[in-house]
Amino acid sequence: MATETLAANVLTADALLKSWQGHRRLTRKTIEKFPEDKLFQFSVGGMRPFGEMALEFISMTLPIAKGVATGKWEEYKGEKPRTKSEVLKVWDEQTKELDQLFPTIPQHRFSEVDKAFGKWEAPGVATILYAIENEIHHRGQGYVYLRALGIEPPFFWERG
Amino acid sequence: MATETLAANVLTADALLKSWQGHRRLTRKTIEKFPEDKLFQFSVGGMRPFGEMALEFISMTLPIAKGVATGKWEEYKGEKPRTKSEVLKVWDEQTKELDQLFPTIPQHRFSEVDKAFGKWEAPGVATILYAIENEIHHRGQGYVYLRALGIEPPFFWERG
Repeated sequence: MATETLAANVLTADALLKSWQGHRRLTRKTIEKFPEDKLFQFSVGGMRPFGEMALEFISMTLPIAKGVATGKWEEYKGEKPRTKSEVLKVWDEQTKELDQLFPTIPQHRFSEVDKAFGKWEAPGVATILYAIENEIHHRGQGYVYLRALGIEPPFFWERG
Repeated sequence: MATETLAANVLTADALLKSWQGHRRLTRKTIEKFPEDKLFQFSVGGMRPFGEMALEFISMTLPIAKGVATGKWEEYKGEKPRTKSEVLKVWDEQTKELDQLFPTIPQHRFSEVDKAFGKWEAPGVATILYAIENEIHHRGQGYVYLRALGIEPPFFWERG
């Protein structure tokens, strides 16, 4: 019956973490494709360069995972790298931290509505999905930058 | 404990449908922003025009929902509109159909692994997420096209 199906749970926390890390691996590959001198310089249509977008992902990932886990919403205060190798270094550190942090999220926090960073009211799972979707959205824009530079982006379905 | 949390279910079918339709509303707004003569003509970096991407979404949405619901994977055989108003008309028809079709997905089909269109092996929920993420990815590219045309895209968080 429709009502029962709609109330059914369809995604585990583990699948959500694996999806997030899969997307983060694809974003990492996308960062890698940019020539060093283009990552923070090149853009299309007056938009931000892809390096700035990558810093946005870096500033969201752990603060959102921590906020959902603990209810404490703290802005990112870590490094803001400005070279490709530094971006990738911070990226890889965050990959490990996210793998450790995510499993500490208490089960009830995924459905509990909270005000992320004192501003965005949503269940924890929706805030995490927002972070993932924001990364997909801007990474898609990075793909256009790469194409405009004559560079083939990674395959969208390549998450390994 | 970590293992228990990771096995926890964090998203209901209802939330997944609402998320999908919210993204579809944002994509609709994005289509609307394109001038008629640019939707199927304009692109950046030798990529497809946004109208072609919209047709891709149209060709995926119901066949994927039907495939997950029934295990029958049939390619889209409906209209392939070539004007903005025709695209939006088909879009709105699909919105209603998706609302009717999605609740018919049996609960076990979200976790059951199936070979979508005889090619892509994944649990039903992953195939649905792929459709949503593919739309987010290409819509982000549409945003670059709009910016390159000097047009402000809709706000990313605007899903109503």
